[in-house]
Amino acid sequence: MASLILVRHGESQWNLEQRFTGWADVGLTARGIEQMRVAGTALLSEGIELDVTFSSALSRCIHSLWILLESMDMVWVTQHVDWRLNERHYGALTGQMKMRAEERYGTLAVKEWRRGYAAQPPPLDEAAREYVNLDQRYAGVPARDLPKTESLSQTVGRVSKAWVEAIAPQLLYGRSVVVVAHGNSLRALTKIVEELSDAEVGQVEIGNGEPCIYDINAALKATNKRILMQDIKSPSHIL
Amino acid sequence: MASLILVRHGESQWNLEQRFTGWADVGLTARGIEQMRVAGTALLSEGIELDVTFSSALSRCIHSLWILLESMDMVWVTQHVDWRLNERHYGALTGQMKMRAEERYGTLAVKEWRRGYAAQPPPLDEAAREYVNLDQRYAGVPARDLPKTESLSQTVGRVSKAWVEAIAPQLLYGRSVVVVAHGNSLRALTKIVEELSDAEVGQVEIGNGEPCIYDINAALKATNKRILMQDIKSPSHIL
Repeated sequence: MASLILVRHGESQWNLEQRFTGWADVGLTARGIEQMRVAGTALLSEGIELDVTFSSALSRCIHSLWILLESMDMVWVTQHVDWRLNERHYGALTGQMKMRAEERYGTLAVKEWRRGYAAQPPPLDEAAREYVNLDQRYAGVPARDLPKTESLSQTVGRVSKAWVEAIAPQLLYGRSVVVVAHGNSLRALTKIVEELSDAEVGQVEIGNGEPCIYDINAALKATNKRILMQDIKSPSHIL
Repeated sequence: MASLILVRHGESQWNLEQRFTGWADVGLTARGIEQMRVAGTALLSEGIELDVTFSSALSRCIHSLWILLESMDMVWVTQHVDWRLNERHYGALTGQMKMRAEERYGTLAVKEWRRGYAAQPPPLDEAAREYVNLDQRYAGVPARDLPKTESLSQTVGRVSKAWVEAIAPQLLYGRSVVVVAHGNSLRALTKIVEELSDAEVGQVEIGNGEPCIYDINAALKATNKRILMQDIKSPSHIL
């Protein structure tokens, strides 16, 4: 029986500031670092071994993975970086405070962008472009594959490619696979393994540093799910 | 033109204590961490970009690589972990203070083990075995390939396999390749790219965190070599 362990990166500076992050490469907070230590310790105490790991190409995930591996004393486990596991691209919203965006575009529009399946925020504009650094890490990606904004549906599309080409083969091989990614790219994976509808997937909430452990069968479907909750209590945890 | 950048991990606790380390999984000192930051900054100021990285399976190299990537703001670069880049296996010497080993086996024998090409220390014994943790990271390696002691010649043998199978193809592809490894596994790579004799290779000294940058031609030979020295002055640097 294979295991799939989904972990959302620890709290980032913009999670804390309530800003749309998307493809902006924002670092972890001290609390985010601690969340990943807690996640690693929790996985260890569950007796979880890791065979292979995947993360997005964004630093907050790679750092989160490093802290997780460090706290499990398994720093040597194979790491794959895959841009297709990046957070949903938030287009012109990138870098904006959520409250400010609601003032600008209206509460309903922002809610639809955040929770709807097919709704796409306006594409990257000058203000947002400064936060999205299309540097060397995307060098091998055809320009047509690099989004300027995305609906959740489009995020699911690219995450599905990473699933088919990279993650699923490891699970079919019976491995214990960790994926450290983002709220929306993990929603996409949840949709795939739990066979959620388009309406359901927008309601999935995954907490920073709270590993979700699936047993995965030979048909690549989840047969069991456990969530290791963070028990660090602090006001921002409730947000 | 491809680049090969060899970096010896930062100072480890046993470098500091003058103990034979080999396959023992010893952590970095605070100074070792700082050396890797300095190395990363030095590579950046040389305008070096990295396409792909390799390290041994020992934590001091993986941590060193992470610090290097972090200080270059390139944490997303592909990381390959390869046990064949591990330090030379020091057999029964593992964990022993260098001075104590000289008292026990004689100065000449220890010198020959450290500098000779074909000399092999006594194989792993009970005392040394507790330092060498053949855990999950070696799970895919056939038992016959896992040494109980090694001459430098044998280390060169296994490093050569990693060179042929993993590192050289990246260089032929024109890539900029970093290898973070150990005193003796880097001697082995130096022997290969500089075509050193068996007598010469034992004399090669590579400082912790001092990147050695080779231009590599299409015949996989070095055509140019630069070393970025650490300029942190402290007594233990002289040792």
